[in-house]
Amino acid sequence: MEKQIYSIPTLKRLPSYLRELSRLQQERIKQVSSPQLAKLLHVDSITVRKDLEIIKVPGRTGVGYPVGQLLDGIQEFLGWKNTSEVFLVGLNELGRALLGYSPFTEHGLKIIAAFDHTIDELGQIHHSVPLFPLTELRHLTERLKIKMAILCVSDQEAQETAELLEDAGIMAIWNFTQHTLQVSERVLVQRVNLAGDLAVLSVKLRDRLQNEFDEVDQQGKDRSLQS
Amino acid sequence: MEKQIYSIPTLKRLPSYLRELSRLQQERIKQVSSPQLAKLLHVDSITVRKDLEIIKVPGRTGVGYPVGQLLDGIQEFLGWKNTSEVFLVGLNELGRALLGYSPFTEHGLKIIAAFDHTIDELGQIHHSVPLFPLTELRHLTERLKIKMAILCVSDQEAQETAELLEDAGIMAIWNFTQHTLQVSERVLVQRVNLAGDLAVLSVKLRDRLQNEFDEVDQQGKDRSLQS
Repeated sequence: MEKQIYSIPTLKRLPSYLRELSRLQQERIKQVSSPQLAKLLHVDSITVRKDLEIIKVPGRTGVGYPVGQLLDGIQEFLGWKNTSEVFLVGLNELGRALLGYSPFTEHGLKIIAAFDHTIDELGQIHHSVPLFPLTELRHLTERLKIKMAILCVSDQEAQETAELLEDAGIMAIWNFTQHTLQVSERVLVQRVNLAGDLAVLSVKLRDRLQNEFDEVDQQGKDRSLQS
Repeated sequence: MEKQIYSIPTLKRLPSYLRELSRLQQERIKQVSSPQLAKLLHVDSITVRKDLEIIKVPGRTGVGYPVGQLLDGIQEFLGWKNTSEVFLVGLNELGRALLGYSPFTEHGLKIIAAFDHTIDELGQIHHSVPLFPLTELRHLTERLKIKMAILCVSDQEAQETAELLEDAGIMAIWNFTQHTLQVSERVLVQRVNLAGDLAVLSVKLRDRLQNEFDEVDQQGKDRSLQS
């Protein structure tokens, strides 16, 4: 079988297309051009045309893309038309917050159980999600045929918990810890790199403040030359 | 002044270098080679050498990089040696979780106040952070000379709150909402694209499950051919 290779930036932009297309649909707009989408998403129209090639809904010159078909096509492509059931492991503050994070349901993601080593009795519920001791993980993964888990433990526990997930048969880990996981190739890992985002913003802001400072400095020098 | 252009993927990887270098330092390791770093970060060594060029700590052939100096250099570059004070706006479940998110302090980020329209009296505190009504935002931004804000409001409130932040003089917004913000060029925006991460993981997992299914299917066919 031919292996599909998709561009990661394209995949990451698809949810933004979904959001803008839903909005257009709500406004009963039937067609949208690539320059219009480009403007809404802050990218250029060549990028839009390339991104949407993978959806295989052809745009027509002078008319654009059919909004409804494109929306359907992207949801279908992402597999978000059907609900994916996932586990969440680690009930720190962030983990608890994610149990109630409403945008997940928009993306067909349903957290059906959460696990933590601090849970020692059954019957607890948070945001309608039942909580289980970590010892139940393997059994329930097999029984419910769960393939994806959200990892929200502390950095210190990240590696051993990931190994537990792999042993249990989990094939995809969404890693909210700061730890770079060492797992076998059988397990897909997607990391939420908050520190990386912050690095980008810190450096850009520093450069901008520095530029402003230099400009003020230069103005000062200009003034002293004039006087 | 010459404008610096950095590669975004490089910036996003820098916190991972920091983490691995701290670990090496704790183990009293003094030198590290680019292949070693490459292995720890799951990238190739050419990428490591390119990434570290911006830090201007030269690696030596056969010896590697000096761990302490590189650690210092990256922290200095990111501006994480000094604490950046930021505001958090929007106290939904995720916002409240971020107030207690300990990795932020590692990166020199200190949330010194949080704002929400549901707060109507002074004196409330969550995770040691004082909470304020949104009406205090402008005044306190000016008074405390805050330049960066974390945005955790609902998607519906995202745009108007961003405009409020811009008016107040905020120059960098870390956007945790799903909304694509429309702000002037004076304001830097970095988005946490959780839906994008999920899209990548969904598609990869779907393809892998499909491949496994095809393989099983193929094995079935092979067997029927043999029998």
